[in-house]
Amino acid sequence: MQIARTVADYRAQRAALVAARPGLVGLVPTMGFLHDGHRSLMRRAHEECATVVTTIFVNPTQFGPNEDFTRYPRDEARDFAICEAEGVDIVFAPSVEEMYPDGAETTVSVGPLSTILEGAARPGHFDGVATVVTKLFAIAQADRGYFGQKDAQQLMVLRRLAEDLRFPIEVVGCPIIREADGLALSSRNVYLSAEERAQALSLSRGLREAEAMWAQGVRDADALRRRVRQEIEAEPLAEIDYVSLADQRSLEELHGTIVAPALLSLAVRFGATRLIDNTLLAP
Amino acid sequence: MQIARTVADYRAQRAALVAARPGLVGLVPTMGFLHDGHRSLMRRAHEECATVVTTIFVNPTQFGPNEDFTRYPRDEARDFAICEAEGVDIVFAPSVEEMYPDGAETTVSVGPLSTILEGAARPGHFDGVATVVTKLFAIAQADRGYFGQKDAQQLMVLRRLAEDLRFPIEVVGCPIIREADGLALSSRNVYLSAEERAQALSLSRGLREAEAMWAQGVRDADALRRRVRQEIEAEPLAEIDYVSLADQRSLEELHGTIVAPALLSLAVRFGATRLIDNTLLAP
Repeated sequence: MQIARTVADYRAQRAALVAARPGLVGLVPTMGFLHDGHRSLMRRAHEECATVVTTIFVNPTQFGPNEDFTRYPRDEARDFAICEAEGVDIVFAPSVEEMYPDGAETTVSVGPLSTILEGAARPGHFDGVATVVTKLFAIAQADRGYFGQKDAQQLMVLRRLAEDLRFPIEVVGCPIIREADGLALSSRNVYLSAEERAQALSLSRGLREAEAMWAQGVRDADALRRRVRQEIEAEPLAEIDYVSLADQRSLEELHGTIVAPALLSLAVRFGATRLIDNTLLAP
Repeated sequence: MQIARTVADYRAQRAALVAARPGLVGLVPTMGFLHDGHRSLMRRAHEECATVVTTIFVNPTQFGPNEDFTRYPRDEARDFAICEAEGVDIVFAPSVEEMYPDGAETTVSVGPLSTILEGAARPGHFDGVATVVTKLFAIAQADRGYFGQKDAQQLMVLRRLAEDLRFPIEVVGCPIIREADGLALSSRNVYLSAEERAQALSLSRGLREAEAMWAQGVRDADALRRRVRQEIEAEPLAEIDYVSLADQRSLEELHGTIVAPALLSLAVRFGATRLIDNTLLAP
């Protein structure tokens, strides 16, 4: 496994690898502090691509001024060991200065999809994501990019971005990976106290309850949303940011009877820790 | 010479060409209605690259609502003949729908450099340029991109863009090409009446006068700007948009004594036709 700290090093390493081993290049962009969710992306990339690249970069521009950029968990040595174990060929782990060179001003914005739900709760978040991923796409020159369905809206934003900007990359969404008790894996789970962690199970439990209603034929948007809220509101430490049931393509909030695939997604705070989760309800 | 109408066709043509003839790929983005300025870019690309790609696309998003998008001159058959004569390998001439697929929302913005001078006179212009050039960079997968110094601020914006977004492309600026009488070549020159064209010579004349003062040691910004204005204001049909003498890097307007390289640039209207020109004053 090779480690690149600069764009120039990455390009040289990538070119040599692709020359020696022609085939697809798969990209797994991460913010590090890797967990089994990231591992699942690397494995999927490995199944489909000759060369697998992982990037580790905690991107400052996607954090708001009062968010957790500085305290976001980092453990590079452990991350490198995980990448090595997963057979990653190149880890690109640049500095902030390498990604945002002196005087960098260029920003990428994906439009309306960026300003609702997560975008409304975290103003500027998706512009930061779109900007850094445009850079990563331009740098990596990969054929496929692997992203987790846990960040469902991010996945939609990045599909839109790749399509709109005509990048020659296929954005591949991969299933949410959960703990045995249902908690969706997240680097932010380490922030949770034991009590918060126990109450955070209400998120996946609420989604599962809604899925069960859906399986029984319930199609009333408000009833489904209400069921999820009810489950979470029963936990005294949980503070709901939103529970959304929205059109799968436009993310427009749905009311009345649902007739097309819908994304049931939520964001909930436990103290300073903000968790997200979601499930797709498809007729 | 091959003509690609779609991104998919271009990619296939490029891949086949590069496989058969390894070496650099040079990109010459244009809005068509090609003139000797464009030819000079193609020739430079030919000197430096194994494969030369020209794009012809009148980009709607860089025109304001009251600008000349619909009447912008177009002559595709003539453009193709010029590309053929210049030994261009691939002409990428997509439709608006191919470049802005249904629902496209993503925009690229280069920040402060985009909002002064041309950006102030043409709000949104450089966001349109940055967005389309990001797409062309992503599509073309070229090693070098050739742009004319006539659009000096655009060249700066695109250098910033390529650097910021980490595109593996070198942005190459090429000298302004002029008619024998000094008029800078522009596709918009065809709009000029005989009288307007005669008076439009005041632009290059003013710049030459300032260059002569500069050569004689004049370093007073206001005196240099005044001399250019004087030359143009003597023409009754000329309406000055701006005459700027600005720092070459920041484009901040200069006053007092000039100590670093400065860009002397101007925009002047003749009726509905807007012309630009510039020269670099280097100590």
